[in-house]
Amino acid sequence: MTEIIQETLNRIQAIDLRDLKIAQERLDSLTKPPGSLGRLEEFARRYAAIKGVDSPTVRRKAVFVFAADHGIAEEGVSAYPAEVTPQMVLNFLNGGAAINVLARHVGAEVQVVDMGVNFDFAGCPNLIHKKIAPGTRNMSREPAMTRRQAEEALQAGIELAMQWAEQETDIFATGDMGIGNSTSAAAIMSVHAKKTPRQVTGRGTGIDDAALEKKIALIERTIQINRPNPEDPLDVLAKIGGFEIAAIAGFILGAAASRTPIVIDGLISGAAAVSACKMNPAVRDYIFPSHKSQEPGHDVFFQILQCTPLFDFGMRLGEGTGAVLAMGILESSVRIYNEMATFAEAQVASHNIQADDEEYLPG
Amino acid sequence: MTEIIQETLNRIQAIDLRDLKIAQERLDSLTKPPGSLGRLEEFARRYAAIKGVDSPTVRRKAVFVFAADHGIAEEGVSAYPAEVTPQMVLNFLNGGAAINVLARHVGAEVQVVDMGVNFDFAGCPNLIHKKIAPGTRNMSREPAMTRRQAEEALQAGIELAMQWAEQETDIFATGDMGIGNSTSAAAIMSVHAKKTPRQVTGRGTGIDDAALEKKIALIERTIQINRPNPEDPLDVLAKIGGFEIAAIAGFILGAAASRTPIVIDGLISGAAAVSACKMNPAVRDYIFPSHKSQEPGHDVFFQILQCTPLFDFGMRLGEGTGAVLAMGILESSVRIYNEMATFAEAQVASHNIQADDEEYLPG
Repeated sequence: MTEIIQETLNRIQAIDLRDLKIAQERLDSLTKPPGSLGRLEEFARRYAAIKGVDSPTVRRKAVFVFAADHGIAEEGVSAYPAEVTPQMVLNFLNGGAAINVLARHVGAEVQVVDMGVNFDFAGCPNLIHKKIAPGTRNMSREPAMTRRQAEEALQAGIELAMQWAEQETDIFATGDMGIGNSTSAAAIMSVHAKKTPRQVTGRGTGIDDAALEKKIALIERTIQINRPNPEDPLDVLAKIGGFEIAAIAGFILGAAASRTPIVIDGLISGAAAVSACKMNPAVRDYIFPSHKSQEPGHDVFFQILQCTPLFDFGMRLGEGTGAVLAMGILESSVRIYNEMATFAEAQVASHNIQADDEEYLPG
Repeated sequence: MTEIIQETLNRIQAIDLRDLKIAQERLDSLTKPPGSLGRLEEFARRYAAIKGVDSPTVRRKAVFVFAADHGIAEEGVSAYPAEVTPQMVLNFLNGGAAINVLARHVGAEVQVVDMGVNFDFAGCPNLIHKKIAPGTRNMSREPAMTRRQAEEALQAGIELAMQWAEQETDIFATGDMGIGNSTSAAAIMSVHAKKTPRQVTGRGTGIDDAALEKKIALIERTIQINRPNPEDPLDVLAKIGGFEIAAIAGFILGAAASRTPIVIDGLISGAAAVSACKMNPAVRDYIFPSHKSQEPGHDVFFQILQCTPLFDFGMRLGEGTGAVLAMGILESSVRIYNEMATFAEAQVASHNIQADDEEYLPG
């Protein structure tokens, strides 16, 4: 592992339980019955423990969409051709995709990162150029990438998170684009959860029964020929991952190392989060779940990270669409923490009464 | 029933299924796999069918918080004294309550309506004065209000919805404040769902086991002595309802009559929605569910309206807090409809390929 990766892993610290307690005391002083905002309180408490219990800020918000192509796409695992990867990258840059609309809605900026798209984006402004190769190799025949490439992708993600965290970005969300990447993500989930490919493989962009069977068989073959080592998450990323998945894993590590809350999208981001968590379990404290995707492999994320989804809208688009919606909700919980009046400030009675306490009876 | 109520009920029309189809065609032309935004598409489709499929607008958004006191509060059914109702109304007007923070977050205005709080708000600006009486009577001993009062409250709600809908308000959310009102709402749910009080009664603001038993017994007595007629929703509202609950029911009718989507909050708003739906089942088309409250009686809303909650954050605060969060998500779905690029506009391949279609294979 490179020095930067190792340093990043060493820097990640679990949050302080005393801060959680202080944050909950603040929440309990606000004009509402204790605990009555449910998971909004859970979110606000953890956000405050990460960013500072006195006045946790939400200045810049950013969703990073990591894009890359996958050699396995040549096997026909997606309902769309691989050329859709660069076409959608251009759509992101033009502001026309779902992630652009939803990010605008919650006030987040969209950063698009080319980690390995099979297209020459030379001269494209507003794109973050980190291409490692024009797509991975076909993992059903050989390792998707070299270990060195996996390290490069991981490190690129780490550096982006550190850089943006320094520039007042207080929350990140993860997103992805890559035709074929649900095949890679399902394979990663299968290895880390010790589940069969059949248990974790779904229809991605919407393939039919025959294509689904083929996808499962391909994942079985992929794992069989590559023998990724579940005790070595970098080995798994290199052999059966994708450039964007490795970069998201690094991005999560970088977020945790820079004490920045990060909202995780669906299956692809979930596979990256599981990989990051296997490298250092303390990243869990910085991770905020978003939606439950329709992809069965996404369940592994919730199992391994021991968290529950915020909502289930039956979404299966990727790009970070679920994560930015959750980011809006997370921000609302922080505003509750910062902006609500306390019982004392609003002169509202915070105490219970006995039924026979006549003083309080309505006329 | 008054002429205005009857006219309103007559004006409510179910939405046109052809509009739903046109709206889905628009959604399917956008740069995403068909159906991949799940419930966001369901929401956008229905919103467009209500407001116009060409370019459904979201101009002003408003949450109406209806407040009133309840005679039953004197029995000690809440963890808070009745004086908290006016104190929280003042907190709303000062912008310090949870609903203020969450409404600011989603860009909605908060309108506070005094339907029957036991406090003299004379001279309070920014409060909508519709007080019918300073609280209902103790429904465990006599009817909560007269039929005439129930009609007045219903009509007040109708008129507010019609008035705001004319002033460019494109979405409403419902909210409530009233110490004791979860007792009334549970009683209404019990009658309309033909369930026992025990099945639908919860801890409201957070009462203990003994107080819960007392609350259930009081609801049993309330229904027994009043014998509300489930075939006559106005009779139910009059005998065991509250001024704010009847007003919310009217507000929902007025929203549907003016073709304005309306997002429903938790148990209290749910009891009002069930009442409105019993008066004219077509209101259902205008109603958007929000969260699942921790109150067991809230399930009746989802059963009778045949809808499913958008999320479950374990919230139990009322005020419209769950509804405004859902309003933000609903608006995001309308923005998807209006702002996303189509496959043609973005020049993205929308067609599936066969695995042997070499033309599309990555290099």
